[in-house]
Amino acid sequence: MSAFSRFTPLIRALPSTVPFVGPEAIERQRNLPVKARIGANESGFGPAPSVLAAIRARAGETWKYNDPENHDLKQALAVHLGIRADNIAIGEGIDSLLGLIVRLVIDPGSVVVTSFGAYPTFNFHANGFGCRLATVPYAGDREDLNALLDAVKREDATLVYFANPDNPMGSWWEADDIVAFTRALPETCLMILDEAYCETGPASAMPSMQALIEQPNVIRTRTFSKAYGLAGSRVGYAIGTPGTVQAFDKIRHHFGMNRIGMVAAQAALADQAYLHAVVGKIKKARERIAAIAADNGLLALPSATNFVAIDCGGDGVRARAVVDGLMQHGVFIRMPGVAPLNRCIRISVGPEHDLDLLAEALPQVLKAL
Amino acid sequence: MSAFSRFTPLIRALPSTVPFVGPEAIERQRNLPVKARIGANESGFGPAPSVLAAIRARAGETWKYNDPENHDLKQALAVHLGIRADNIAIGEGIDSLLGLIVRLVIDPGSVVVTSFGAYPTFNFHANGFGCRLATVPYAGDREDLNALLDAVKREDATLVYFANPDNPMGSWWEADDIVAFTRALPETCLMILDEAYCETGPASAMPSMQALIEQPNVIRTRTFSKAYGLAGSRVGYAIGTPGTVQAFDKIRHHFGMNRIGMVAAQAALADQAYLHAVVGKIKKARERIAAIAADNGLLALPSATNFVAIDCGGDGVRARAVVDGLMQHGVFIRMPGVAPLNRCIRISVGPEHDLDLLAEALPQVLKAL
Repeated sequence: MSAFSRFTPLIRALPSTVPFVGPEAIERQRNLPVKARIGANESGFGPAPSVLAAIRARAGETWKYNDPENHDLKQALAVHLGIRADNIAIGEGIDSLLGLIVRLVIDPGSVVVTSFGAYPTFNFHANGFGCRLATVPYAGDREDLNALLDAVKREDATLVYFANPDNPMGSWWEADDIVAFTRALPETCLMILDEAYCETGPASAMPSMQALIEQPNVIRTRTFSKAYGLAGSRVGYAIGTPGTVQAFDKIRHHFGMNRIGMVAAQAALADQAYLHAVVGKIKKARERIAAIAADNGLLALPSATNFVAIDCGGDGVRARAVVDGLMQHGVFIRMPGVAPLNRCIRISVGPEHDLDLLAEALPQVLKAL
Repeated sequence: MSAFSRFTPLIRALPSTVPFVGPEAIERQRNLPVKARIGANESGFGPAPSVLAAIRARAGETWKYNDPENHDLKQALAVHLGIRADNIAIGEGIDSLLGLIVRLVIDPGSVVVTSFGAYPTFNFHANGFGCRLATVPYAGDREDLNALLDAVKREDATLVYFANPDNPMGSWWEADDIVAFTRALPETCLMILDEAYCETGPASAMPSMQALIEQPNVIRTRTFSKAYGLAGSRVGYAIGTPGTVQAFDKIRHHFGMNRIGMVAAQAALADQAYLHAVVGKIKKARERIAAIAADNGLLALPSATNFVAIDCGGDGVRARAVVDGLMQHGVFIRMPGVAPLNRCIRISVGPEHDLDLLAEALPQVLKAL
């Protein structure tokens, strides 16, 4: 196949991998319809009715580029979080922000520390900029803060990734532990504190804004994709010192935000009553997923997120068989990528109907193993 | 101001520039409302009613990530263009695709050739990856194909940018000239043929798909932002050989597309009758802008785009005064950034009401100079 002859050496060495196969691709590949879409940690509860009303009311504005300064959402977030607008950078979802952060700090050969089996899209970006990835095993299905810190120091790492609560395991650390980690972190290492699931965890797990806002080597990333139900809108944000987050302006897509997506994000932020109600539904759905697991003799891990990891009591082959078997019934779920995490399957919360399908299909799948 | 201490040398050396200041920022800075938004080459005619109906009907899907393979839009574009789906890559507007293309081929120090005064966002990306930019002057307010080719050969350039029709001047070349350029181009240089304005130019200026589809060193970029009226939706696409466009899969944001933006793009593509009608309106608006210029003793340049460059008969200082003066009346326009192009102002087409405001304000502004 004929390709341009002069891609960079780094590009030539990269594989054509995707971090995740989408449910639509699975439908096409396997010629099976997804009936319960509970695999990508989206929110089947959807965004607030007020958000949908705002999208419909302002659809006609989509002929205009979005404000490249993202002024209004930054102001609203600043008020909501009790910080300043210049502590915030907006991006096309956390995925996009992760790519920008990697680019800001990684030269080929720089060392990046993460946990073995943590968020693959971060690794996709880190490898894409030629880093050397140093991974630390999970300990007890949690990212291992102490081992991460040791690795940073040992490797003189430029960047460390840590998600709290964690994906794919749903586990979490308490705020005090995280603050202590940031205080012990060398100032030459930037920490990505990925808080994609911050709305669904215990309050005690979330450091206050004030606890970290003065640290130039900490960037917290958050999103409207999860609890707010706006994965398809692609709006995320990064929180840090003004000096650190202003670096995004050197390389970000200034006109990259979708205008209606921004309308949706602002409406979502303004409707905290809906968020509160949805978080309640998410907690109930987690309990129901755990109950379904227990009914089938499987153990659900504690979760602070909008999904539940379930130990299938075997290895990755067994868990993969459960994932594939559920898809035969139209139930789309995912699983962690590496051992020992991949003894688990990962099921996103969703409406009753989706979990009914899960409850119906899971015993049949397990029986057929 | 406290910033992380270990950004890469390349990042530290980059300025915090933005390619364009948005109209919302100008409103905030100058405390003036934009009444006629005819500066960013958006389409004030808006997208088709069928597109707005599709957005409203499917707003509820925004809780789902978009299909990372962008299957449906690629299929529809392939049918529309008479090429194959694997000739196409989808991205968050041409701006985003430009960034990816630069990253695919540029290492620090690689040479990139473009025209002096051409699209600044391309330069933003090229500089952002550390290239050495070699620029060629416009000739007669057109990009100079022959000089670009000479520069590519002289500099052993890895990448050359060429827009047809051109922004900011609105000028164009005939298809045969462009095809000849690509045939003469060294295979070690990738050409970006930016066709953002392809729908509004003469048919004779657009090479057929078949003329270039076998060339691994040509990528054509197109967008739904201009004639289709979807700038805020952020959907662009790149056309090339399968081997070349598949390279995007190594580094693109697989889950980066806005789901409702993709719904809008597919609906827009399906409504060619609306596109045809809008292109008619764009041509009439170009004629009206030229007439307004003539009424004021100014010369409008020929345009194949959705904007018109108008020679203000002086230097950049005079043109800047016209741009600033029009904004005092709420008329937002822009101008080219460098001499000699910056003797011109650049006015985007728009509905009658917007051009009425222009016609009213321009003589007052010129009188006050």
